[in-house]
Amino acid sequence: MSQHPIALLIEKADKAINEEDFDTVVDLYAEDAVLVIRPGKTAVGKVQIRNAMEAIAAHFDRSLDVRQAGMVILETGDTALVLARTLVSAKNSPTIERKATYAFRKDAEDRWMCAIDNSYGHEVLDAGA
Amino acid sequence: MSQHPIALLIEKADKAINEEDFDTVVDLYAEDAVLVIRPGKTAVGKVQIRNAMEAIAAHFDRSLDVRQAGMVILETGDTALVLARTLVSAKNSPTIERKATYAFRKDAEDRWMCAIDNSYGHEVLDAGA
Repeated sequence: MSQHPIALLIEKADKAINEEDFDTVVDLYAEDAVLVIRPGKTAVGKVQIRNAMEAIAAHFDRSLDVRQAGMVILETGDTALVLARTLVSAKNSPTIERKATYAFRKDAEDRWMCAIDNSYGHEVLDAGA
Repeated sequence: MSQHPIALLIEKADKAINEEDFDTVVDLYAEDAVLVIRPGKTAVGKVQIRNAMEAIAAHFDRSLDVRQAGMVILETGDTALVLARTLVSAKNSPTIERKATYAFRKDAEDRWMCAIDNSYGHEVLDAGA
């Protein structure tokens, strides 16, 4: 069974994050993409997203391991909503399961790009933003 | 504090659903919108969405009450991701809290339209695709 193109992009992103290949990571985001760094705090655009990814990698002492344990992609036209179970682990930390939510949109060249990356799911509601 | 235009649309949708004013409800969806009727089953486009809404209203014996108990809207450009706590109640049924997820996009006239309506959140992952 062939995978959805967005599933392949997320797999590529996870691999690149785990290898700290941030050029590849930011390529997968739209120019004006929003990344939830933690509930209540976002990074906007490739420069801020790259800085956030580097800070996260350093925070986890370069041992971060991100992978998906199940995913549903709902799409229509140039918009897609992804619901994923994301496993985040690192040395000296217990594995955390997050209920991640991502919005993707197609760009002018018909490529899916990540527009909104919220790996915290509904935890953002607890930030009192 | 003024509300986000998408919060106003969702409020309008809830009121219209509760009043069974389905003309108003379907106006808030994009032409090709996707509604998750239940995990594993979707309605696509205004005709199917209207039929699904009417069937849901009948199922709850015309006593359905939907409202939001908290919402975060993440947006960039013409794309928005909404995380909401949605309370669904009806006579003879306990109130259910759902972790709803919605994707909105702006149309050519710069109006936000609901493109993907998944009130089940990550429960869709339990449907086995």
